[in-house]
Amino acid sequence: MNYSLFAVNKSTSITINQNTQGTNKEVNDEVAVEEPLEFHIAFGPQASREQKNIAITMRTPGNDFQLVLGFLYAEGIIQNIEDVIGISRIDDIEDHSNIENTVLVELNEALTVDLEKIRNFYINSSCGICGSQMIENIGSLKQYASNSVDYIISGSVLKKLPERLQNSQDIFSNTGGLHASALFDQEGSIHNLYEDIGRHNALDKLIGQELQNDNLPLSNFGLILSGRTSFELVHKAALAGIPMIVSIGAPSSLAIEAAWEYEITLIGFLQSDRFNIYSFPKRVS
Amino acid sequence: MNYSLFAVNKSTSITINQNTQGTNKEVNDEVAVEEPLEFHIAFGPQASREQKNIAITMRTPGNDFQLVLGFLYAEGIIQNIEDVIGISRIDDIEDHSNIENTVLVELNEALTVDLEKIRNFYINSSCGICGSQMIENIGSLKQYASNSVDYIISGSVLKKLPERLQNSQDIFSNTGGLHASALFDQEGSIHNLYEDIGRHNALDKLIGQELQNDNLPLSNFGLILSGRTSFELVHKAALAGIPMIVSIGAPSSLAIEAAWEYEITLIGFLQSDRFNIYSFPKRVS
Repeated sequence: MNYSLFAVNKSTSITINQNTQGTNKEVNDEVAVEEPLEFHIAFGPQASREQKNIAITMRTPGNDFQLVLGFLYAEGIIQNIEDVIGISRIDDIEDHSNIENTVLVELNEALTVDLEKIRNFYINSSCGICGSQMIENIGSLKQYASNSVDYIISGSVLKKLPERLQNSQDIFSNTGGLHASALFDQEGSIHNLYEDIGRHNALDKLIGQELQNDNLPLSNFGLILSGRTSFELVHKAALAGIPMIVSIGAPSSLAIEAAWEYEITLIGFLQSDRFNIYSFPKRVS
Repeated sequence: MNYSLFAVNKSTSITINQNTQGTNKEVNDEVAVEEPLEFHIAFGPQASREQKNIAITMRTPGNDFQLVLGFLYAEGIIQNIEDVIGISRIDDIEDHSNIENTVLVELNEALTVDLEKIRNFYINSSCGICGSQMIENIGSLKQYASNSVDYIISGSVLKKLPERLQNSQDIFSNTGGLHASALFDQEGSIHNLYEDIGRHNALDKLIGQELQNDNLPLSNFGLILSGRTSFELVHKAALAGIPMIVSIGAPSSLAIEAAWEYEITLIGFLQSDRFNIYSFPKRVS
């Protein structure tokens, strides 16, 4: 598989009017790039191969293949990298949009793709997994969490993470427009930072990369998020077997409920001198 | 129509472990509520009436009817409030989820609903309108923007908006977990503030309310957003005829491009002493 067919820029330079001290002046500014990405899948036996456009998401270009893989994994369409036999960029047939923004994933012939289930996920794509599917998945996810009771991290190491995350973000400080997702180990080192205008995308890129490297479940890592924590982010982390989520922002009520269900330690409002623990405090020493 | 069948709480109180100065203690904390909301529509002539579940979104309860109306408007399914003959809460047939989280919109019998188009919007629900639909809509939206060249606001009034928005947000400061959308007039007074864990939802609630009151297009108001500005938010604002968008956070590249196309004045990084103008600076005096 080839991952670098196109050079990408996560930010672009534009001329703006900046008003400071009551006067306008023209300055150059960096803004985060946002573009649509189409996901297509090809599936079924050779004799009756089908191709389908399954989603469009607005994303920041870069690591598009990982984004699509992470998305397919979170939606339950693939379980591991063996389910994928190829991934490439294609020219969109319908509207001739540019090739940089369309990805085709060739699924293993032996993989069963339930079109009915995919149709359901269309309905749910704004929240990932909702309603009845949500409850079903909670049951099947518990195995991962129980594998990870050994993951312990000290409060003093946690408090170093915001600065380390900031240092690792090569662009966030330039544009203020990108969300970050990264892994950290028990010593507090940051690994595998991904950025995107969409926080779900940043996490899909991270998990897609780890799926590609056959590293799931991620039982030995915590997940750090630059923003807030929603249910969907907790759900995606649980599917990847991550035992701890820390975020600079606030969690939602359902994120906290899901963290308790999945046996994930959820931390919010992390700063250099404080944090809140919302679930499973036993993993913080 | 009845809008207050259920009392709602935008935040909920929980017990957390707060770590400050290196020690943990149990405290009560307010977190933003996140719950799934199902949107159903009933459509077609009386003799062959159909009902369909068209979307699920994760949202903060409150103003659910406005949220659904704003969503249907942004997706082009309804054009004005005459297209809606009733809106109510229903018990979900499939999974018996609670009635608070399912809304049914009864569409006018005369309204043509293109199921093919709805299926497309499923695919697009993570970004609203993408690809070919995006381009088509830009053409049809220009009429609104050109109606609004008269909207002028002074830089000194703009700089007062962040504090006024903060004062108007009754919950954001408690949980840190809610996005806000509000209108403001040329004197800088804040109107119609809506909050949600999803920024798209907050704007759908606002526009849904204005649609319900038959106030579109909103040519005499600016829109203030508590967070960042994405393409989808600019698109929704354009559909509602709003001539100016100001945000506390950063805009994306596509948000800026769309603002130029739609002839909307886009302002970002608004603070009490400064702001950036990304498009159509002529509306700032």
